[in-house]
This record gives sequence, C-alpha cells and structure tokens, in this order.
Amino acid sequence: MPSGKIDLHTHILPERWPNLRQRYGYGGWLALDHHGPCCARMQVDGRFFREIQSNCWDPTARIADCDRTGVAMQVLSTVPVLFSYWAKATDALDFSRLLNDHIADVCRQRPDRFIGLGTVPLQDPQAAIGELERCMGELGMRGVEIGSHVNHWNLNAPELFPFFQRCEQLGAAVFIHPWDMMGQDVMQKYWLPWLVGMPAETARAACSIVFGGVLARLPRLRVCLSHGGGSFPFTLGRIEHGFRERPDLCAVDNAVSPRETLPRLWFDSLVHDADALRFLLRLVGAERIALGSDYPFPLGEHEPGRLIESMTDLDARTRERLLSGTAREFLGLAAASGLSGGF
Amino acid sequence: MPSGKIDLHTHILPERWPNLRQRYGYGGWLALDHHGPCCARMQVDGRFFREIQSNCWDPTARIADCDRTGVAMQVLSTVPVLFSYWAKATDALDFSRLLNDHIADVCRQRPDRFIGLGTVPLQDPQAAIGELERCMGELGMRGVEIGSHVNHWNLNAPELFPFFQRCEQLGAAVFIHPWDMMGQDVMQKYWLPWLVGMPAETARAACSIVFGGVLARLPRLRVCLSHGGGSFPFTLGRIEHGFRERPDLCAVDNAVSPRETLPRLWFDSLVHDADALRFLLRLVGAERIALGSDYPFPLGEHEPGRLIESMTDLDARTRERLLSGTAREFLGLAAASGLSGGF
Repeated sequence: MPSGKIDLHTHILPERWPNLRQRYGYGGWLALDHHGPCCARMQVDGRFFREIQSNCWDPTARIADCDRTGVAMQVLSTVPVLFSYWAKATDALDFSRLLNDHIADVCRQRPDRFIGLGTVPLQDPQAAIGELERCMGELGMRGVEIGSHVNHWNLNAPELFPFFQRCEQLGAAVFIHPWDMMGQDVMQKYWLPWLVGMPAETARAACSIVFGGVLARLPRLRVCLSHGGGSFPFTLGRIEHGFRERPDLCAVDNAVSPRETLPRLWFDSLVHDADALRFLLRLVGAERIALGSDYPFPLGEHEPGRLIESMTDLDARTRERLLSGTAREFLGLAAASGLSGGF
Repeated sequence: MPSGKIDLHTHILPERWPNLRQRYGYGGWLALDHHGPCCARMQVDGRFFREIQSNCWDPTARIADCDRTGVAMQVLSTVPVLFSYWAKATDALDFSRLLNDHIADVCRQRPDRFIGLGTVPLQDPQAAIGELERCMGELGMRGVEIGSHVNHWNLNAPELFPFFQRCEQLGAAVFIHPWDMMGQDVMQKYWLPWLVGMPAETARAACSIVFGGVLARLPRLRVCLSHGGGSFPFTLGRIEHGFRERPDLCAVDNAVSPRETLPRLWFDSLVHDADALRFLLRLVGAERIALGSDYPFPLGEHEPGRLIESMTDLDARTRERLLSGTAREFLGLAAASGLSGGF
C-alpha cells in the first residue's frame, strides 16, 4: 500500500493484566479500572492517572479509527508509564514480556495494519538485551521504544552502551519517548510536565546520545526522537555553540559536534504547527521525519497526518516521505522489501 | 545614535562586595576570588562556579568591547546566580540594593553607553515592589530582570501578581532570565543544565505568565523572554494544543490561549542559528525581537548582532528593529523620545 500512511508513534496496552502488586509483592504498578463500557481509568496504587478509551487496547477500535483517518499502518509501542524502569529488574522483565507478547499478538492478528516496537527493562541492560533479542526474533518486532533516561542513567551511560550496540547489530529501530519528566515536582499546574517537561526530556535524551558518542560509535544505529525532537531542534544552535565554547565540558566523550551528528537522527512529525514542521524540514529534511501522532492520547494529532496534508507547499515526494517513506526506512522495512514495494 | 546597536541582554556585577557570609551570618552567597589580573573566580562557599574576566565588572573594558563590535548601548542586568531569592528576604533586599546601586552608578557615569535593569528580592513581593520603585525612581532604571521562577513559586503565583501590577503601573520592562534550572541534579554532565535546563526554564516561565493570566490581566505590562524564548517558540504548537485539549488543566486561570497571548511577549535574539531566528521572526515579527548577546559569557554571541547582520535576507527596517528599535520600545525609550530620535 504505497499511498497509505504509517503512523510511527502510537501507544497500546493490554485490556487486562494480572494484579502486579500481588504478582511482585510491592506497589507502584499501573492498573486499569474498567469502570464503564469502552473506558477505563489508569491508576497507580489507587491514585487516578489518566482516563482512556477502548481504542487504547482494542485493535478493532483502532482499525476503525485508522480507516476513518486514512492510516494504513500503526506502529505500536507501550505507554511510557509502563516502562517500569523503577521496578526490580526481574519484575520489569516479566512485565515487559507480558506487554511485548500482547503487542506481538495484535500484530500477528493484523500484520497488514500493525507493526510492533518492544519495551525492555533497561535498568538491567543484560536482561534488556535478552528481551530485545526475543522481540526482534520470535516476536517479529522492528525495534524498541525506550525512555528519555533510565532512572539515574542518562542515555550516555556506559552501562547502556552494550544495549545500543546490540540494537545496531540486530537492526532494531530505537524510538525514544520522554517520560519521568524533569521539573514535574515544581510545575504541576497547567499540564506543564507534559507541555514543558516532555520537550526538555527529549532534548536531554538527544544531547546524551550525541555528546556521549553513542551515535558516533554506532554508525548504523537508527534512533528516532518523538514529538518532533522536543526542544532539541530549535535549541540546536545553543547546544552547538555550547559544544564549541566549552569542549572541556561538552566534548569529553566524543569529538563529533551535535550539528555534525544531526543527520544521524530521525524525528517524528508531532509539532502541531506548520512553521515548526517547516523549520524541522529545513534542519533535517523529509528523509528524517516520519508521521507520528501519539494516538490515542489527547496531546496527539487526532487525525494523523492532517498537518502534513494541510501544507500545500510540500511537494508529492516530500509528503510521501513524511507520511510513510521515512517510517519504512527507519523501521528497516525499506531494505527488506524495497522502498516502493509496500510491505 | 539611530544606527547603533542596543544589546538588551548583558550581565554585570561589582568588582568587589562585602563578605556576605559575615554580613548576613550564613553561607550560600557568591564571592569573587580575584586570583590574577583582569580575572576572577566566582565561588559559592569556596566551591568554584565560573571563571570571569574584567569585562564582567569593568565599564572601561566593556566599552572597549562595545566599540570593537559596534554596540552603542548595553542594557545591564545582574548575573542570575546573584538573584538571592533563596536567602532571607531582608538580606536579599540589602544585597539587591547594593547590586542596583552599582548598576545605577555605572549608568550614571556613561549614560550614553549603559541602561540599567534592577534586581529585586521576589521572595518578598512587598520588598520587591519597594526596590522596584527605587530602581524606577531615584536610580533611573528602565525595568527589572527576574528569574524564571522564585523558589517554589512559578510566575503565576498570586503572591507575585502585585509585583507585576506595579511593574505595569511604573512602565517597568520585565526581562525574564532562566536560573536554578530544572533537571540540573539529574543531568550534570555535558553542560546540560545550561543547554537543556535553561531553555526549559524559559518555557516554564512563559507558560506560567500566559496560563496564569498575568499578561491577560495586565494589558500594558512588557515582558521579554531571554535566549530567544528558550524552548517556548518551537513547542508553542504543542502548548497551544494542550490548552485546547485540556482546558480543565490549562485554562483554569485564564481563557486567553497561548497563541492569542503571544503578541504580548518580547524575545531576545539569542538563538545562535539563522533559521531559528527566521522561525521566531515569522512567529512574532521583528517588532518583538531585540538583540541580546548574554555578554560577557561564553554561551553568548561574542560579536553581538553578528547573526542578524549576517542574514542577508533581512531588509533594512527589519534589521534596525532587531538591532535597536525593538529594544527601545521594550525599554520604554521610544515613547519618551520618539522611535527615530535616539535617547
């Protein structure tokens, strides 16, 4: 389906899962309270987190939404609040396997509509590598979604490097999503952890893999920043200037500058503003930007691709790249089947 | 001097000040260690913070730099690490008075080259109002520089509103500068508090005054965001989308949306990238962007205005606005003397 949209950035969770407090013996886990038809409350230890609808778990509801908005394929990844990096590694591995089995099952039922990204217990890099191998092997996924940091490790942490190395070896696409937002404790009002903290988290992750030399040392690793790169693209001038002014602080692990590393990064298109997307297009080109909607959450683009489709200044090839071509390349589908050959 | 550049964003401190630990009876204060000719170490309780040169305190050295780079006037404000919001309010007031007296003295010596912005002890809004009145009265300043938050208050705090109200009444320009950066404890490497935390702080401040209705309720208040608005401009689409999707979270204090409020904000030009400045120009127009260099610090633009002057796509009027006209309006100099009439 060459003309169909691929939505790189969608979240899914199972309709039900075991009581994790009972299963692991401690709290902090997310649970769903199915309080009505087609809707549920996400709760942590009885505390309300977010209301969701059935399109967060039900493939049929998702496909109906996709048919309505012209989305050919959704790339499924877990909801970041389920990363479970904070938990005991063995429990996070167990729960990651449950989440990955669910995503793989959904993809197996409708391989024409769904592609899977796994989640891995990054607090234990060896366990994460094991689950990554399972995701890329028996589960048939195309990569993983990871958080913008892992507890006290930023993504430059030497402990995480073997994981990125294995991602490169396996051709696993790495989709970086903000979570556990900096500043959330001091700006709780006005949804600011999501509006200010998340873009900063994405910049933190980008700077960490760039300054840490992760991309420089792994030339074939494919990494995508969600939410249009957060605050990273617009502040790149400042970041680059900092790198050049204070190499004693910034270039301690890697001599390749942020701007030189930029062509190595992918971005999703979720900026909610045509001029912002144009800025990103000039910065990295359509070859590096893939439609992502954050479906089915309210901060997402409710009609995935609408912003791109509304920009009459984009030529057909640019539009095709943004709506599907770049996602195919990022996910390693192009190499498998040829860019023009569908799936 | 219609053709001279005005640099809205420069920092200054006195060459010497009393031992504040002795004066106030507790630590945490900045001190200068003049360890060599023309240079000093900024230290807090003996811990090294930053190396500075004499152009951080010496007006003659500053004027020499300005002459070399074609800067007609510098707008002087204190170094944010001296805000002292964390201290006892009486002590912060005492120290603010010392800093403001110094800035006013420098401006009195060379009113043709320097304009002053004061600093005020915002942890005590009444004391801050008193010092604001002194700055705008006997000290002849044009406004104040304030931090992106004040301890546990964001800028929407009702406690701070009387201060902003008095700024509006007095026609005091408010220059918001990031400090005490979110996330600094979890991203100490690679200068990330400055490269990621500061842009996020500026967005936090912008969102707080916008969502908090400070600008909506004070129609004549003039507020400028430093560092090109940090991450706020590029993420405005996300912020606006959040406001419209979750008014229950975002519109609780003010019904005017971020995008509708945008024309009320000023920005300095410090983005270190021509395309980023073009993005900002399309977003808010040259009428709202004023040259700011962060002189004399290394993350600043070393030749103030060089980026603007290098952009051959800017017409003469746009360039004049960016290099001086907008600063004049923001500082309330235009109203006093006419836009084309110098000072």
